[in-house]
Amino acid sequence: MQILISEIKNWIYQASAIIKNEIKKNDLVIATKASRTDLVTNVDKMIQDFLIERIHRFDPAAKILGEENGQDKLTDFSGRVFVIDPIDGTMNFVLEKENFCIMIAVIEDNEEKLGFIYDVMKDVLLWGGPEVGVFKDEERLDSPEDLSLEESLIGMNSSIYRKNLYHLQDIVDRSMGVRMSGCAGVELINLMTGKRNAYISNLAPWDYAAGKVMLEKLGFKVTNIEGGPLKFSHRERVIAATPATFSAIEDCIR
Amino acid sequence: MQILISEIKNWIYQASAIIKNEIKKNDLVIATKASRTDLVTNVDKMIQDFLIERIHRFDPAAKILGEENGQDKLTDFSGRVFVIDPIDGTMNFVLEKENFCIMIAVIEDNEEKLGFIYDVMKDVLLWGGPEVGVFKDEERLDSPEDLSLEESLIGMNSSIYRKNLYHLQDIVDRSMGVRMSGCAGVELINLMTGKRNAYISNLAPWDYAAGKVMLEKLGFKVTNIEGGPLKFSHRERVIAATPATFSAIEDCIR
Repeated sequence: MQILISEIKNWIYQASAIIKNEIKKNDLVIATKASRTDLVTNVDKMIQDFLIERIHRFDPAAKILGEENGQDKLTDFSGRVFVIDPIDGTMNFVLEKENFCIMIAVIEDNEEKLGFIYDVMKDVLLWGGPEVGVFKDEERLDSPEDLSLEESLIGMNSSIYRKNLYHLQDIVDRSMGVRMSGCAGVELINLMTGKRNAYISNLAPWDYAAGKVMLEKLGFKVTNIEGGPLKFSHRERVIAATPATFSAIEDCIR
Repeated sequence: MQILISEIKNWIYQASAIIKNEIKKNDLVIATKASRTDLVTNVDKMIQDFLIERIHRFDPAAKILGEENGQDKLTDFSGRVFVIDPIDGTMNFVLEKENFCIMIAVIEDNEEKLGFIYDVMKDVLLWGGPEVGVFKDEERLDSPEDLSLEESLIGMNSSIYRKNLYHLQDIVDRSMGVRMSGCAGVELINLMTGKRNAYISNLAPWDYAAGKVMLEKLGFKVTNIEGGPLKFSHRERVIAATPATFSAIEDCIR
């Protein structure tokens, strides 16, 4: 596993160098997918291709579940699967040139083994899993303090908040406030580093896979909004929270 | 003016060192003000006292308008006035230990002369005014691109967004999306560095004074939500936006 970890870290740092170089060139090609604000750029595609090429050079039999280039469906999770999001937070990448992440998860025979979330412009890498623990760069992370809902900040998707789905505005009223960064990876890092105690959003498997494996190792609860397991098959409403805050949210929405 | 600028920069960097040292000591004393989530800490007060001491050592006649310690009212703006927010984004300071700012504005005989916004943990200082221009650290900033509303991200206060005041949800629907950082200073820096084209929030004079003087130099429109001038006397709903986005917002809310 150490060899795999060090390979993946290398791919991520190489991918990050490509992204930073493309930012300098300043000739992004931007297209839309499902909606006017669902963006993809030539760099998303370039990075996904780069990661897949590296994965298959390392393990020709590995399967891929990834956001771009038609790799977004996978039904057979036997063997080794890499779940990848080449640029999570493409809108931020385009307009902010920061607050976007590279995310990779490794699943082996349906067991979630490793997660990697790299905040490219902050140069912060969260990585780990159930066997090795969770690290921020070289520093091992402990579980963050299990604050009550009343003491916590909550990251949330703007649409869920605005529509008051599942009475989630009441949850925000009981909390210390809501934050919206536009990037799942940034929010997942904020959870692991103790800056938020809950994150609620509408996420695809490549948005939550890397975070879930690390968060669970750190004692977080990660479920869909009904409290059931995430299915890795389609976009779902996801709650990730420390145990006390998770219970308070569950009590309020059910 | 160069002497004043270099003095203020020194105070800000010294205040920042005090804050970072207090974060290390990890014994914050937290109290509430107007509401459960309106926080003030011993460090906010310590930094405001520090800044006022430096200001009065430099200019004993200077007047102060500041968030803490009962300095939050000023009616006579003759002479030189310093408008200060020792820690803008106290909630973030307490829970995130990042995304908070020190802000100082200088007004002379009712003319806004200088603004300073320092993102403490990112170590980025925006400073300047109508006579000297606007700088990010040592780099002179040009006016950011005047994107249309449809191409822009918008920073917004969660309460204004949720209540759909002035149909602002429609504005967000026409834009590229909404972001909420919990810190006016962070959002004002995001405007000046081209990461957002609009920011709409409910702000006190010490929240907007430093940003307003720099934003106007960069061609932004900064008004209250009715399109009138900011009064420096009380909390107001503020719009700050590039001209094209400002016009689109005005058309929508009036």
